[in-house]
Amino acid sequence: MADTQPNYPKPKKIEPETLKTIGEFGFIEKIRESLKTKNPSVISGIGDDAAIFKPTPGHELVFTTDMLIEGRHFDFKFITPGQLGAKTMAVNISDCAAMGAKPTVAVVSIGLPKDYPMANVEAFYEGLKGWGESYGAQIVGGDTVGSDVFVVNIALIGEVESGQALRRSGAKAGDALFVTGTLGDSAAGLHALQHPSAKTKEIVPLLIKHHLMPLPRFNVGRVLSTKRLATSAIDVSDGLSSEIHHLCDESKVGAEIHEEALPLSPSLLAYCEAEKLNPLDFVLNGGEDYELLFTVPLTYISQVVQKVPGETGTPVKSIGRMVPAAKGITLITRKGERLPLKAKGFDHFSPKK
Amino acid sequence: MADTQPNYPKPKKIEPETLKTIGEFGFIEKIRESLKTKNPSVISGIGDDAAIFKPTPGHELVFTTDMLIEGRHFDFKFITPGQLGAKTMAVNISDCAAMGAKPTVAVVSIGLPKDYPMANVEAFYEGLKGWGESYGAQIVGGDTVGSDVFVVNIALIGEVESGQALRRSGAKAGDALFVTGTLGDSAAGLHALQHPSAKTKEIVPLLIKHHLMPLPRFNVGRVLSTKRLATSAIDVSDGLSSEIHHLCDESKVGAEIHEEALPLSPSLLAYCEAEKLNPLDFVLNGGEDYELLFTVPLTYISQVVQKVPGETGTPVKSIGRMVPAAKGITLITRKGERLPLKAKGFDHFSPKK
Repeated sequence: MADTQPNYPKPKKIEPETLKTIGEFGFIEKIRESLKTKNPSVISGIGDDAAIFKPTPGHELVFTTDMLIEGRHFDFKFITPGQLGAKTMAVNISDCAAMGAKPTVAVVSIGLPKDYPMANVEAFYEGLKGWGESYGAQIVGGDTVGSDVFVVNIALIGEVESGQALRRSGAKAGDALFVTGTLGDSAAGLHALQHPSAKTKEIVPLLIKHHLMPLPRFNVGRVLSTKRLATSAIDVSDGLSSEIHHLCDESKVGAEIHEEALPLSPSLLAYCEAEKLNPLDFVLNGGEDYELLFTVPLTYISQVVQKVPGETGTPVKSIGRMVPAAKGITLITRKGERLPLKAKGFDHFSPKK
Repeated sequence: MADTQPNYPKPKKIEPETLKTIGEFGFIEKIRESLKTKNPSVISGIGDDAAIFKPTPGHELVFTTDMLIEGRHFDFKFITPGQLGAKTMAVNISDCAAMGAKPTVAVVSIGLPKDYPMANVEAFYEGLKGWGESYGAQIVGGDTVGSDVFVVNIALIGEVESGQALRRSGAKAGDALFVTGTLGDSAAGLHALQHPSAKTKEIVPLLIKHHLMPLPRFNVGRVLSTKRLATSAIDVSDGLSSEIHHLCDESKVGAEIHEEALPLSPSLLAYCEAEKLNPLDFVLNGGEDYELLFTVPLTYISQVVQKVPGETGTPVKSIGRMVPAAKGITLITRKGERLPLKAKGFDHFSPKK
């Protein structure tokens, strides 16, 4: 029977569209179509040698950039292309937020293997675009190149009322030190992705969400800059211990941080208890929280505590105070010990722990 | 005798400084020091979550970005780190020039293997900085990441008087088509680097220089935009045949280009004759010329011819004219044949020729 079976034509295999099949200019056309804008400050977007935009009079511009490389900064085992797009944009908006600025326009360079599926690239741009637009940022241009691994670079511009940018360098001894949200969740979420365990399955979704989809603290940054409530600010991308050093170095002050005041989420505490880990490791030496760390003069503390959470929907918490530089940076433990706090945040070139 | 030779201590091997030995923050400190600026429009450069700068009132901003990856866009066999820095900046300034804008501030992301020598990185930044500053562009920030290969991304902002940017989209049928300098030299220079030959050794230095150290046509762009002499402009980065298509697509016109009018350097002609190559291949399908291709209304032609070279030091040449879109894009050969001119410029995802 087998021999006489009619020789049906094989179903034609449909090759997924890739950069190889549509080419660089086909790719640009496709992305350009999806990124069309009606933003009136953008005079010309993709399709010229450079984009053209009109800055708002009375404002200064902030300018930030980030490069992310597959296998170094992210792993497609854990994050989808759409989530990566959203996160890439969120991380840059977080830098704008730390300056008290409104994001306006971005350019995105992407390096891709030539057989990378277009559907994934489109999902990536959807994530970029969606998160960008929800904070006012428009993608106005970019570059597309071949690469062995997925590489993306974003450069983002924001606007802030002249003279009102939040700098790292304005903290004074005596200021209170505040932080938004909770710390350590993102690093614990990454840990959970890398060490899946049945016993913490119920606990980890919020931690993982924090890692994959961080929320930039845009509203807090804007309230602090427009009401001039903060003397300095920085976003927590490399762990609290590193960021407090950056802030103190730029402001030429020291700091005291109280362990008992650190805002830890119930999920983080439950995860660390179940996995026998120290939450302080995630808080101090973790990374990618994208919370804002900022300093407030004594006279504005009550205004910050009473108004910022209500106006922004984001909790803020005082975790310590700034001191003269000679006193250094100290962690005061629950037991009252005073420990010098070293910067141990993530360093991209250090040997892995 | 050999056995009794005293056992002198071996000279201590001095390890070159690398990213691994100085770390990410050591690297940033080093670069920051070398990039300090007195540019009054830069309020804050490296050392904060984002740089802050003040746009000039009455101006619009142009925004462009480029990503370059080792092994794809350059080969350290042929280009030094310092030259690569200069070229990276020049290529972006060329995009500004094609918009008629003055470059102002840039951010630079760099991905590096951790054992990459710091001396080479410093040479790269010297090239970037030197060429940037000579055209008014200041590096105000960046990102530093680990990578298997050398990757660099630059995002550059420029300023142009409001409403005066040179677009790709303004060409009209009847306009004359001009180009600066000579075409094809850079692609021939790359060919010479890849195919070294004793018989053309005397001819190639100028071609190679054109490839390694392209000159952005900043002055020409500025004269064209400030005097409103051009209806459109584009820089020739991917070969004339591609660029004329971009210009015609955006302007919704066609074009006629006269082969005999194409500006070819004596070096290109001599090289092609010696190597039995067709110079037209380099001119039409080469790349990285970074000349400006621009269109001029009939009434301004004499002004362009008489004044632009004198004021800018850059030769310009009329190579054809714009025609209605329905007539397409035509190359008129020396013999008077009319050939449809297809876009065959460098496409980063196409299989290599």
